[in-house]
Amino acid sequence: MDAMPTQFDPPSGTRDFLAAEYEKREWAFGVLRSVFARYGFEPLQTPAFERIDVLLGKYGDEADKLVFKILRRGEHEASGEADLALRYDMTVPLARVAAAYGSKLPMPYKRYAIGPVWRADRPGKGRFREFVQCDVDTLGTASLMADAEVLCAHHDVMVGLGLTDFTILLNARRVLFGLLEVFSVPEELGEGVLISLDKLDKLRPDDVIAELVGRGLAADVCGELVGTMTAPDATDRIRTVLKGSDLGMAGLDQVDEVLSLIGSQIPAERIAFTPRMVRGLSYYTGPIWELAAAGVPGSVGSGGRYDNLIAQLGGPDVPGTGSSIGLERVLMLTSDDAGAGRGRIDVAVPVMSEEFAKQSFALAGAARKSGLRASVYLGSSGKLGKQLKWASDQGARWCLIYGNAEHEACVVTVRDMTSGEQREVDVDDVVTYLAGASRAEAAGG
Amino acid sequence: MDAMPTQFDPPSGTRDFLAAEYEKREWAFGVLRSVFARYGFEPLQTPAFERIDVLLGKYGDEADKLVFKILRRGEHEASGEADLALRYDMTVPLARVAAAYGSKLPMPYKRYAIGPVWRADRPGKGRFREFVQCDVDTLGTASLMADAEVLCAHHDVMVGLGLTDFTILLNARRVLFGLLEVFSVPEELGEGVLISLDKLDKLRPDDVIAELVGRGLAADVCGELVGTMTAPDATDRIRTVLKGSDLGMAGLDQVDEVLSLIGSQIPAERIAFTPRMVRGLSYYTGPIWELAAAGVPGSVGSGGRYDNLIAQLGGPDVPGTGSSIGLERVLMLTSDDAGAGRGRIDVAVPVMSEEFAKQSFALAGAARKSGLRASVYLGSSGKLGKQLKWASDQGARWCLIYGNAEHEACVVTVRDMTSGEQREVDVDDVVTYLAGASRAEAAGG
Repeated sequence: MDAMPTQFDPPSGTRDFLAAEYEKREWAFGVLRSVFARYGFEPLQTPAFERIDVLLGKYGDEADKLVFKILRRGEHEASGEADLALRYDMTVPLARVAAAYGSKLPMPYKRYAIGPVWRADRPGKGRFREFVQCDVDTLGTASLMADAEVLCAHHDVMVGLGLTDFTILLNARRVLFGLLEVFSVPEELGEGVLISLDKLDKLRPDDVIAELVGRGLAADVCGELVGTMTAPDATDRIRTVLKGSDLGMAGLDQVDEVLSLIGSQIPAERIAFTPRMVRGLSYYTGPIWELAAAGVPGSVGSGGRYDNLIAQLGGPDVPGTGSSIGLERVLMLTSDDAGAGRGRIDVAVPVMSEEFAKQSFALAGAARKSGLRASVYLGSSGKLGKQLKWASDQGARWCLIYGNAEHEACVVTVRDMTSGEQREVDVDDVVTYLAGASRAEAAGG
Repeated sequence: MDAMPTQFDPPSGTRDFLAAEYEKREWAFGVLRSVFARYGFEPLQTPAFERIDVLLGKYGDEADKLVFKILRRGEHEASGEADLALRYDMTVPLARVAAAYGSKLPMPYKRYAIGPVWRADRPGKGRFREFVQCDVDTLGTASLMADAEVLCAHHDVMVGLGLTDFTILLNARRVLFGLLEVFSVPEELGEGVLISLDKLDKLRPDDVIAELVGRGLAADVCGELVGTMTAPDATDRIRTVLKGSDLGMAGLDQVDEVLSLIGSQIPAERIAFTPRMVRGLSYYTGPIWELAAAGVPGSVGSGGRYDNLIAQLGGPDVPGTGSSIGLERVLMLTSDDAGAGRGRIDVAVPVMSEEFAKQSFALAGAARKSGLRASVYLGSSGKLGKQLKWASDQGARWCLIYGNAEHEACVVTVRDMTSGEQREVDVDDVVTYLAGASRAEAAGG
């Protein structure tokens, strides 16, 4: 066999998850699954790779460059051609599934997907080539209740993960189109102007104005537009000016209906109509939203209604709405001990001598039978001190010691690893004893 | 954007998991995680792909052909060369992790890994190109307690998944080497002879004898060897003949020690010393085992001690032992309703008219707040009959109906979807009412 290369890191932009990180992530996935189930969203899991023609050409050339392509196999390998590619997002597979299973799916189809996606981006702080994407979407209904539902679920996920200091910025594409109309922005400049306005959360107003002028928008219009968007009473002002646009009024109605449906299910301080929020992607058609969390640049989640996207991706012509949870960022915000301690064992069993290995092994088995997490010492040290250190490293609550003295007296020494106290318990009673102590601790905190 | 190809199936050899299958698989993963945690095994998750030099050349040319290779990106894409490859098993990544994190890992390192692996095998019934592999291993100890522990964990996983009709065939490589010695099989024929003996569970004894003769073994030796292995009292006979070989006696001692440690943790009828069981792979060095389940050709799991493998794969020179659970096969054996019903909702909320959409949406939210799974009707039909059909398809236990009559009386009509009975409940009391009814059902079964 060939030797392993000298570098043992995982490939650039990917990560190994050892116990503590794995447990934290698994805890988060559990929170997500349980919130989504409470809303009646179904899980969906698709393969890691798709046929390459399913993936390419969906989001433009720049995105295509980021797709990991898989070489053909066997005699075709030498061709250097790819026939498969790793999943780039969860939406293209959703479109394929909607096309493949059509009437077998409930309609509307409410589904969530949690799983890795792969993008050949340049790796950087918080930017990975393999990262978990978590999407929750509803296909097949134009009802804004679906948008409100997705938003509530997204909100509940954040709270479930222990995050409360975040805001949902809510807007609607038609509000933006209405603004362009009211300020007489020429149609051909529309998308570009929106892209510049989207920077108002990062750039100074003057810089955005300069950018807009550079795009060819008249200077006075630029000043007026940016002035309205950044005024302290921007929301009220915009509500007033939009009265001059049917499109704008329709957008406002959507925003208000979503807010009205949500009612108190999202506390008022966590959601706000935010007319300057644009969302870069042009495929949105209705309400749009973005989650901003304290201390995090960019968003920790976003979504909106996309009534034409599934058909554009090759799926059936169904309306849709959904939210994508920026799980990797959200996990960086959750406290380090979230989900911690789940890997800890309850009972450690030292092995005092080979002669009593069988008894020690049996004690661990008996502890497990009663539902406790138990581990027997597998190392090579015969010294109790070293074995107690091992037990403590494992986070064990108790040690069960069985050596010569115990053997003669038919007892087990139970050591409380927190207090260091030891007591002898009859061999036959030790599991009952531990189960009782464990219940008492759980009840007493 | 390009149109989706006319074929919407997932790629050959892969599967989409819709709600019911996903829930069943997730349930099984939960069982695995909980059993492993009870034994103090830690989770490990590595990336889907590794650098190609980490993966290739580890299990021979045939295996290399089954590896999915990923094209280099950017300007290098045109070279047709691959620099990454999808994970082929869980053992090569384990060797890399053991090398990468060395002293940061607990020693012995007890880990489990559950996740997809990819092999470009010809797809067939029960054979996939993307399938979940589940491995549980202990590195860094020569103690047979580690082997016994892995076996007990593997056993508990099967029982946890609801399977009881299976047998663990236990053997040791040295038993096999001892047999070769006792029957004076020339050393150069040894591996080949073992490969033929491994077929005694599938082929008739005469066919195996013919194969052995073809390998160049003397005809009388072949007859004697196969006769001993297939005799009704084969185990006793082999125990007797092995007295003529130190190697064989050492193998027997290993088998007996593992059985003694296991004691009653695996019921005697589910584990048996099986001298004819060979395990094809030559990297095993100590005890070996295979799980046979009623009605399934081949094994549903297997493992053994491999004291040189991790070093051969490029990792540190540590002994190891482990078991691989044939999860895809095991899932085919578990009952169809295992883990079922987890996706079912408790409460369905029809929408009687647009006027009351907000109230219906709020009722679903309130039900969720009390921990129930609730879904509001998002379809387009205004007819109660159709909406009740939807509720029933969702497996809902109750429907909450709020229309004109209910609005005037400040009540909600709660429909029991099992009995069809309806009762009016005060709007403010409905969640308390459902929570109580739900608890009563849970308690009463």
